[in-house]
Amino acid sequence: MPDYRFSSAFQAPTGSVIRELFKYLSLPGMISFAGGYPAAQFFDRTALAAASAQAFAEAPLDCLQYAATEGLPALREQLSLLMGRRGAQVSMDQVLVTTGSQQGLDLLIKVLLEPGDTVLVERPGYPAALQALRMAGARVLSAVTDRDGLDTERLAAQLAALAPGTVRLLYCVPTFANPTGACLPLARREQLLALAARHDLLIVEDDPYGALRFSGQALPSLLELSQRSDDAQGRVVHLSSLSKVIAPGLRLGWMVAPDAINQRCRIAKQTVDLCTSPWAQQIAAEYLRGGALEVALPGLLAGYRDKCQRMLTGLAELEEYIEISPPAGGMFIWGKCRQGVSAQALLEQAIERRVLFVPGAAFYAEAPELDSLRLSFAAPDLQQIDTGLERLGEAFKRL
Amino acid sequence: MPDYRFSSAFQAPTGSVIRELFKYLSLPGMISFAGGYPAAQFFDRTALAAASAQAFAEAPLDCLQYAATEGLPALREQLSLLMGRRGAQVSMDQVLVTTGSQQGLDLLIKVLLEPGDTVLVERPGYPAALQALRMAGARVLSAVTDRDGLDTERLAAQLAALAPGTVRLLYCVPTFANPTGACLPLARREQLLALAARHDLLIVEDDPYGALRFSGQALPSLLELSQRSDDAQGRVVHLSSLSKVIAPGLRLGWMVAPDAINQRCRIAKQTVDLCTSPWAQQIAAEYLRGGALEVALPGLLAGYRDKCQRMLTGLAELEEYIEISPPAGGMFIWGKCRQGVSAQALLEQAIERRVLFVPGAAFYAEAPELDSLRLSFAAPDLQQIDTGLERLGEAFKRL
Repeated sequence: MPDYRFSSAFQAPTGSVIRELFKYLSLPGMISFAGGYPAAQFFDRTALAAASAQAFAEAPLDCLQYAATEGLPALREQLSLLMGRRGAQVSMDQVLVTTGSQQGLDLLIKVLLEPGDTVLVERPGYPAALQALRMAGARVLSAVTDRDGLDTERLAAQLAALAPGTVRLLYCVPTFANPTGACLPLARREQLLALAARHDLLIVEDDPYGALRFSGQALPSLLELSQRSDDAQGRVVHLSSLSKVIAPGLRLGWMVAPDAINQRCRIAKQTVDLCTSPWAQQIAAEYLRGGALEVALPGLLAGYRDKCQRMLTGLAELEEYIEISPPAGGMFIWGKCRQGVSAQALLEQAIERRVLFVPGAAFYAEAPELDSLRLSFAAPDLQQIDTGLERLGEAFKRL
Repeated sequence: MPDYRFSSAFQAPTGSVIRELFKYLSLPGMISFAGGYPAAQFFDRTALAAASAQAFAEAPLDCLQYAATEGLPALREQLSLLMGRRGAQVSMDQVLVTTGSQQGLDLLIKVLLEPGDTVLVERPGYPAALQALRMAGARVLSAVTDRDGLDTERLAAQLAALAPGTVRLLYCVPTFANPTGACLPLARREQLLALAARHDLLIVEDDPYGALRFSGQALPSLLELSQRSDDAQGRVVHLSSLSKVIAPGLRLGWMVAPDAINQRCRIAKQTVDLCTSPWAQQIAAEYLRGGALEVALPGLLAGYRDKCQRMLTGLAELEEYIEISPPAGGMFIWGKCRQGVSAQALLEQAIERRVLFVPGAAFYAEAPELDSLRLSFAAPDLQQIDTGLERLGEAFKRL
C-alpha cells in the first residue's frame, strides 16, 4: 500500500475516548452511565411517526429535493418560534439549520479561526469541542470552573493578563454543562458578557441541554442577555440542537449568529454538506408545528428529574467514596473520587462488574484531574440506576 | 456591532455562483437548465414512503438514537452490496457513510491537506470542490480536459514537469463529469492510475453520476480498476451519493477509502457532525434492502435518456450558435458559444426570456473560458426543454 501523507493534525489522531468505551456496551448485562444518549423510552414515537407520515404526505418534494443551504423555511420558522418561547427574539433569517449543533462549531472554526489562534474553553469541557479545536490547530486555553460553571472572577484576571486581542473566542456550555452539569448563575452570565465587551471577545454559547431544566428557575441564555445589552450585542453565537429534546436521529441543530458570521457559515456549509437532510428537517418542522414538543416536554422533564433524583439518592450511599454536585437539569452528574482514587482504576473494576462511566480525564485540554468522573443518568432506567450504583460501590470497595 | 475578525479564507468569501442564480427561479414562467437537481417527477415516492414507514415501524430506535460515526450497519451493508453490483469489491467496514458525497471531500481535506498543498482538479471542474479546496488554502492546479475528460497525456507531461511529491491529490469526476458530461475512456483510466502509481498520487474519484448511464457500455470505476492493479492499489478514494439515484433529501453519500484514510476520516467526522442522520440512513437502508433501487433504475435511466435526447435535438437547431458534446449519462451538456459569444451576456438575454443556465466561468479555477456554458436536462420536463431551448435561441439572436 502507498505511504500516505496526512495533515499535521491527522498524523496519529486519537478518536473520542467516550466512543472508545462503546465496545464495552455489548458486554452482556452492562449498565452504562457513560454516553450522553437521551433515554430511548422517552422518545415521542407516536407523534414522531405521525409527523413523519404527514411531512411526506403534505410536502414530499420538500422531503426529497435539495433544500437551501440555510435550511427549509418551514423549519427555520419553527426554530425562530422555539427560540422566542425560550426568551430570545430571533427571526427565521437569523437561523442557520446545521447537521447537529456539532456542525455549528465546525462551521465557526472554519470561518473564524486560523491555526494558532487562541480559544478559551471551560475546564473541564465538552471533548468533541476540544477535539475540533485541536484538530483545527487552535491553541486551547482552559477557563477555570467551579460547581456554578465558569469562574468569571478568575476569567477576568486571566483575560487581563493576556495581551489584548489574544483570545479569538470563548466556547462554553453555560446551562447544564457537559460534563459538570453546572448552570451559570445570572450574575456570572452578566459578568461574562461584560468581559466579552471589554476584551472584544466572541462567545460561542452551546446550548443543547438548556431546555432540560427539571428544578429551579429558568435563566436567560447568554444570547437573550446580549440582546438586551448595548455593549454585548452581537457578541454571542448561540448553538442548539433537537437531539436532546426530540431525537438525535434527526441530526438537527441550529445556529443563531450575527449576520456577518451567519452569512459566512452558510457559505462554508455549501462546501461542507450543501444542506442538512431536508427530509429530517421536514419531519422536525411538522413535529414542532403541531405543538408536539410542548406537549412532550413536561413528561420528559419529569422523567429526567426522577432519574437524576434516583441517581443522587444512590450516590448519597457512596458519599464516603465520591463527592458530587447535584444538577438542576441536563443529563450529567460530575463526581470527584475521595482520597485521590483514580477514575481510570475505578473504571477497570467497574467494567468487570458491568457498569460504565467516563473518567474525567477526557474532559480536560491539559493537566487532567484523574480523580474526576462523569455519570449520565439519562439513558438507564431507574432499576438500572440502582443496580449500576451498587456495582459502582463494589468497584470502589475493591480499590 | 463588534468588528468581527475572520479567518483569511472568509474575509470576503463569495458564495456559489450557481446558488446565486436561484433567485431567478422564482420569476414566473422561468425554465431552468441551471441546477444539478434531479427530476422531481422521477422520485420513487411510493417506494420511499413505504421504506420510510417500514424503517420506523421495524427499527424506531435505529431511526431516533445516535448512530456510530461510520454509519448504521444496515446501510453500510447495502452500500457494500451496491458497490459490488457496480463492480468493486467493498466490505461494509470499508464504507463510511457521509452527509452527501460533499462531506466526503470535506473530510478528506481535513485529513490530507495542509494550507498551501497542491491539488489537481479537472478544468473545467465541479465548483463546490474548487471552493472547498480554495477555502482550505490549497493551491489548485488545473488538469486539462477534452470531450473525453482528463487529457492523461497532458497530465503526464504536467506531472513530469513538477517537482516529485508536489501534488498531494487529484480530484476528478471521471464518469459523466460535472460540468462537461464527459466519461473517461478505459485506456485513459488505466493511464491515470499508472500516473498515480508513478507520481505517488492519491486520486479522489467523485462518482455521483456513474450509475446514470443511459447509452454506451459501462466502464469500471477507478476504484475497481485500482483493485485489480498491483501498482495502483490503495491510490483511489471513491466518493458516491444517493442524491442522484434516489433523492437528495436523504443527504446520504459514502466514501470507500484505504483503511488508514477511512479511520482518520471517521475521527474527523466525530468533530464535524458525530454521525449522518440515522433516520435518513434507516430509510435508505430499507429502500435498498427491498431492492427498490434496482426496480426504479431502468425507468430513471430511460427518463433521463429521453430528456437528454430531447435537449440534443433542440440544440441541433441551435448549432449555428453553440457547439456541444453529447453525453452518455449524467445530467449535463457542456456547450461552447460560437464566435466567442459571452455566456454571461447570453445569460442576461436568457433571463429576460425566462430561461436559465450556468455560464461556464463558474467551473474554472483560473482563466475561465467565457464562451462556455452548462445546461442540465435533468429537472425540466420535455415540453420545458423544447420551450427553454426556443427561448435560448431567441437570446442568441439578440446578441
